[in-house]
Amino acid sequence: MSNPLKIGIAGLGTVGAGTVRMVTERAEKLKAATGRAFEITAVSARDKKADRGVDLSGYEWLDDPLAMATHSNVDVVVELIGGADGIAKDLVEAAISGGRHVVTANKALIAHHGTALAGAAEKAGVSLAYEAAVAGGIPIIKSLREGLAGNRIQRVYGILNGTCNFILSAMADQARDFDDVLAECQKLGYAEADPSFDIDGIDAAHKLAILSSVAFGCEVNFDAVHVEGIRQISLTDMQFADELGYVIKLLGVAAVQGAGGETSLEQRVHPCMVPKNAPIAHVSGSLNAVVAEGDFVNTIVQEGPGAGAGPTASAVVGDLIDIARGANIPTFGVPADQLKAMTPVPMHKHVGAYYIRLMVVDEPGVLADVAAAFKKHAVSIESVLQRTRDPGEPVPVVLTMHETEESALTGALADIAAVKSIIEPPRMIRIEAL
Amino acid sequence: MSNPLKIGIAGLGTVGAGTVRMVTERAEKLKAATGRAFEITAVSARDKKADRGVDLSGYEWLDDPLAMATHSNVDVVVELIGGADGIAKDLVEAAISGGRHVVTANKALIAHHGTALAGAAEKAGVSLAYEAAVAGGIPIIKSLREGLAGNRIQRVYGILNGTCNFILSAMADQARDFDDVLAECQKLGYAEADPSFDIDGIDAAHKLAILSSVAFGCEVNFDAVHVEGIRQISLTDMQFADELGYVIKLLGVAAVQGAGGETSLEQRVHPCMVPKNAPIAHVSGSLNAVVAEGDFVNTIVQEGPGAGAGPTASAVVGDLIDIARGANIPTFGVPADQLKAMTPVPMHKHVGAYYIRLMVVDEPGVLADVAAAFKKHAVSIESVLQRTRDPGEPVPVVLTMHETEESALTGALADIAAVKSIIEPPRMIRIEAL
Repeated sequence: MSNPLKIGIAGLGTVGAGTVRMVTERAEKLKAATGRAFEITAVSARDKKADRGVDLSGYEWLDDPLAMATHSNVDVVVELIGGADGIAKDLVEAAISGGRHVVTANKALIAHHGTALAGAAEKAGVSLAYEAAVAGGIPIIKSLREGLAGNRIQRVYGILNGTCNFILSAMADQARDFDDVLAECQKLGYAEADPSFDIDGIDAAHKLAILSSVAFGCEVNFDAVHVEGIRQISLTDMQFADELGYVIKLLGVAAVQGAGGETSLEQRVHPCMVPKNAPIAHVSGSLNAVVAEGDFVNTIVQEGPGAGAGPTASAVVGDLIDIARGANIPTFGVPADQLKAMTPVPMHKHVGAYYIRLMVVDEPGVLADVAAAFKKHAVSIESVLQRTRDPGEPVPVVLTMHETEESALTGALADIAAVKSIIEPPRMIRIEAL
Repeated sequence: MSNPLKIGIAGLGTVGAGTVRMVTERAEKLKAATGRAFEITAVSARDKKADRGVDLSGYEWLDDPLAMATHSNVDVVVELIGGADGIAKDLVEAAISGGRHVVTANKALIAHHGTALAGAAEKAGVSLAYEAAVAGGIPIIKSLREGLAGNRIQRVYGILNGTCNFILSAMADQARDFDDVLAECQKLGYAEADPSFDIDGIDAAHKLAILSSVAFGCEVNFDAVHVEGIRQISLTDMQFADELGYVIKLLGVAAVQGAGGETSLEQRVHPCMVPKNAPIAHVSGSLNAVVAEGDFVNTIVQEGPGAGAGPTASAVVGDLIDIARGANIPTFGVPADQLKAMTPVPMHKHVGAYYIRLMVVDEPGVLADVAAAFKKHAVSIESVLQRTRDPGEPVPVVLTMHETEESALTGALADIAAVKSIIEPPRMIRIEAL
């Protein structure tokens, strides 16, 4: 295999520029590793004139990225445009039907259309590679799809959004409010002007849906992911978490359910209270981490940068190396037509422990009402924590609940919210057994 | 590729039995993942009659494992016999020259003969796979050789021996002496009757030499690894480490040296003081962890079980999956004849910070002598810590030293050891900047 690997890159933001830089700087090593020269032949982006800090003069500029899909001088299309639909999807579909391999960092695209695209790629005999779409530089897709592929994975979970982890870490470390930290992140460019994609958990949910497919051999089912973000996390809850021996993280968690296993799948993204000694509790700042629990291997933890030009380019180039070496691996580990359609477990069926914070005035009578509500719904209280207070002042009452089905807890909280001296809606954060 | 993958397994200890169990229990998934049935066809071990908890009656028993190497019904030889030479080496060499793929968990074999065996395998057009040889179930070889292969790795390090990590963790957590914990480990079967292979760092050094080759694209050079074990670590030093903000770990560390990089290589295994907030400081018990630092990806941390039947079988089966999928990857990431011969950096050229503990009587005069010795060798003291004492009683004096070349430190310690009121040889533990 001494013919060069001819690469077209569509989308030249920081990741695209980083990929150009890595492929050119590392030319010698890539050739040694694969036996083939890596040649960037064509590039495309919206603005031809922008200075991207890399020399693009040697590559053919295509105003229309779709032209890459059938370009005689392109073996692999690297799609770095982004978005679940539109031009990115058109390009990937066209590249596959044009017999070109595809490397993409586009989590939304794979989360929404992964199963169909995998089927098309396998039919066309090309690779659809997306290591960069999940957890940036961490080679977690490769680990699950190849190295750990002999295992039955019971659960995969992780810190999948660096922006959320950065905000939560800063809140905890610096005792600052959510809004304050978010505003700073936006000023520094760590968070978007419209941060909802990150902050509301959607980005993490895209990644979780992809991880699930690779871990459990099931169809990618983004719509089945229960998604909550971190806007509701207050400094008060951070401080109680600390007191109770937890840290608060936005986690994506996917786990198979049922005795025979592998028929039902729970997928959820939401803030969690994580025990301080859990494998990922110490992962702070913008880092990501993914934990896979397999029946033979036990627990494997991988941590690293989840975003950024360098780490993402590292993942893109890793995929290009696989393609240059002629890797022949089904997109999600098993052929697309053998991916299982697993039954989603709805969130009200989730079983777990819970942290509850109530803001109450006139506490003595209230606790009896609260306890009665939990009793009525058969939810068992594990602990109660109450701050000293001035008479008449609202005071936080914090409870932790033993494992229960979420529907029971929700029922109890609805009753509790109606108690007159509880002056704010109850706050609930799930406690994760890790 | 619908022909089955025919597997011969030589060596039926716990890992061999675990591999048999995984291949048989996971038959359906393996076929889905690779398009090929996995068939164990032949097995071999010393004692045919031993009960291994798995049914071997369906496989051909070979009294001579070497017969596997040319057996018409074997595509892959799984070598789980162990040992750098002898029958394991004979079998792997014969299998390669017989055109059979090889999967091995044998770190000693690869550490001592990896370069030559890789050359032979590549010449014969077969795979030599050894994921199970390093860090058990953690797919670190795959990560370095494939997913992160576009990076220039500057340093790779890790906790590579679970027995040592278990002993050091127990000493720290339970305030127990080394001998005490070791004896318990031996009673429980966690450590061998002759524990030197683990305790003296040899096992970790085998793994480090293999990691180096994959990370840096160099020949496997076990002889260039500086090796020290953990026998000298005392509870006293553990407690001082804690006070200074460190934990003590046995690390393997490999790093390229020099401005242009990649010409000189430092490889060393020894106890280290690791800052409590380092990425691997919390990795305790028998877990392993490996950290890779690449120029594009930054820092990737992987943790998991480093030994045991299940995790090791997971790695063996991961290699079998690669082979079944027709993976075509040079043994150490680049072809064996392109592996660099890097210049070893001798330990006396190591530059780092140090912890020193002296046991002294009649302290006032001594400190002047100690300070003079360090000054003479141009070694700069960072901090001094001294316990209260009864007059005339020996008292520990603990110093931390700024970064210095080890030869200077060794010179100073030789002078200090000669001071009359220093009643024990100085204890030195390297402080690792992680």
